[in-house]
Amino acid sequence: MKINGTPYRSIWRDAEAVKVIDQRWLPHDLRIVALRSLADFEAAIRDMWVRGAPLIGATAAWGVAEEMLRDPSDEALNRAWTVLNETRPTAINLRWALDAMRGELLPLPPADRAAAAQAKAAAICDEDVETNRKIGEHGLQLLRDIAARKGGGRVNVLTHCNAGWLATVDWGTATSPIYHAIKAGLDVHVFVDETRPRNQGALLTAWEMNSHRVSHDLIVDNAGGHLMQNGEVDIVIVGTDRTTARGDVCNKIGTYLKALAAKANGVPFYVALPSPTIDWTVSDGLTEIPIEERSAREITHVQGKTENGQVAEVQISPDGTGARNPAFDVTPAELVTGLITERGICAATPEAMADMFPEFARPAP
Amino acid sequence: MKINGTPYRSIWRDAEAVKVIDQRWLPHDLRIVALRSLADFEAAIRDMWVRGAPLIGATAAWGVAEEMLRDPSDEALNRAWTVLNETRPTAINLRWALDAMRGELLPLPPADRAAAAQAKAAAICDEDVETNRKIGEHGLQLLRDIAARKGGGRVNVLTHCNAGWLATVDWGTATSPIYHAIKAGLDVHVFVDETRPRNQGALLTAWEMNSHRVSHDLIVDNAGGHLMQNGEVDIVIVGTDRTTARGDVCNKIGTYLKALAAKANGVPFYVALPSPTIDWTVSDGLTEIPIEERSAREITHVQGKTENGQVAEVQISPDGTGARNPAFDVTPAELVTGLITERGICAATPEAMADMFPEFARPAP
Repeated sequence: MKINGTPYRSIWRDAEAVKVIDQRWLPHDLRIVALRSLADFEAAIRDMWVRGAPLIGATAAWGVAEEMLRDPSDEALNRAWTVLNETRPTAINLRWALDAMRGELLPLPPADRAAAAQAKAAAICDEDVETNRKIGEHGLQLLRDIAARKGGGRVNVLTHCNAGWLATVDWGTATSPIYHAIKAGLDVHVFVDETRPRNQGALLTAWEMNSHRVSHDLIVDNAGGHLMQNGEVDIVIVGTDRTTARGDVCNKIGTYLKALAAKANGVPFYVALPSPTIDWTVSDGLTEIPIEERSAREITHVQGKTENGQVAEVQISPDGTGARNPAFDVTPAELVTGLITERGICAATPEAMADMFPEFARPAP
Repeated sequence: MKINGTPYRSIWRDAEAVKVIDQRWLPHDLRIVALRSLADFEAAIRDMWVRGAPLIGATAAWGVAEEMLRDPSDEALNRAWTVLNETRPTAINLRWALDAMRGELLPLPPADRAAAAQAKAAAICDEDVETNRKIGEHGLQLLRDIAARKGGGRVNVLTHCNAGWLATVDWGTATSPIYHAIKAGLDVHVFVDETRPRNQGALLTAWEMNSHRVSHDLIVDNAGGHLMQNGEVDIVIVGTDRTTARGDVCNKIGTYLKALAAKANGVPFYVALPSPTIDWTVSDGLTEIPIEERSAREITHVQGKTENGQVAEVQISPDGTGARNPAFDVTPAELVTGLITERGICAATPEAMADMFPEFARPAP
């Protein structure tokens, strides 16, 4: 999407090298870095210069592709696979992208691998963009309907965390309908949950909205219920880390509270997701999805920009106070109005999901 | 309550002067300051060295009392009333305490006023302590019942914002049942919502719990729903800024989301309040209570302690991003299990409230 009028992707290759936005400095500083050596790609994923499952996968694919330019041997290919696969423990797209690259390249004679790897990495990125573009097109229809019902009035969207283009190659998932609506000339306003503890809403989504000139307000995670009570939110759209075969949605901590408020106030609550995010092996999200507990420091300390422009961390709580830090929660399917996928929108029910993705759905036990 | 084993109130007079905790430095620094001149008291209230409606009232009362030591004339009394009344715009206890002081002192000959003023200010403080002690005794019974049902197991309380002893003279409102339970030997654990945007949970409630050696964990405001879903919260107790005659509860932003989660998960949701907090002139909290919108800076900037121990502010959001900052929300009465008052616990219904406070309740229209 655009940064001050110029279109960007979150990762691209120019004549010189692969480039990414070093997201650790956002929103205070836009630093574009070149990734060259395998160690560069390893650091970029491991140290979270890039984050978001689709972007991690795309970065790993380019890491393999660049290595093939230097050394297209089986050994180099396998070493790149191993090194990159160990950078993050649980990113499902990481393993998928590495397998896709190796599966494509290993059968080829080494002399053909460099060019094929470049093409494959580019194709993985383009495919991600296309998936998110379709999600946006389907979601756009929801926003058009709201605008029509309001006689062309402003459509107010609330979102949580960052399911934006910075987490994918372009468009984002939850943000894709928003960007499509802007492109279609709708009057859209976005309420951005800051999304404690890591503040991805304040740091990343607000930066995206600001950079693309989307009307938006940052709000604390506490405020969404009040806004919904007062008719200030027309639709909630969030992303998901994992959605079960019956439509339970695991997403960033706090999503569940917004879903409860949406239900209580008759506000539609949608989840935007590429279909690989659906885990067809799991049904009951509450009992079957383990929730990661992260470090207390994410809660007790907050990072930001100081008066003199430095990025620094401050401690908000007293010395000696501990914290509990569950990173995700599960929104039961009955609170979800619908799932916005690349194939279209379906209800968060096993039947509707199986109809939309018959090739993945399992017969009921 | 206790700070590292020593009992404190939030305001007291010793042989030398009136002393308060300068709460602007909590939780990082315990600074006790002497208030001597009228200008000291004015600054203490206006610049929020002290906060919380009951403590503001107590501080104003002491401000009048100390002025009477210097000059017990009508002019001095009226000037103190005027100066202190202008320190904060909406604190109902401020006006009430000032009126109580002037009403007591004006009829007396000036020579008798100094001693009477000291006694009256002390009595206002003692009365606040007694009210909160009773709230704690009534609330204790709820915690005892939970402990009994769990066979003496740990009672997990979730609270939002700071309705603690730092906001009153002692005990606090929502925290009073907790302190009483600790005193009674119950095994209590408190989940402290950090309470963005001003972080009163992280800054004040966590400090109270830490100082009084109450088992507690700081959590982000996003986490309470997940904890309730997983059976980790036995009861929610919050304070209130204003409760209507039918039991709608206006409290710090985010309270409503916790009430929704409590209802959805069968967790009892109680509101602790001294009866003057009930506004008998208002019924429908959602339509009749105006919600204050505060500065965007409270959201875009966070204050904390830097690595070298200084208190500093960092900006978390991009330059150019605005914010909406509603400071309170309204929890509809049907989400409230009960009100813990100094007279006992009653349902959040017009009938039960009128039964408990027949002298204030108005006949139904």
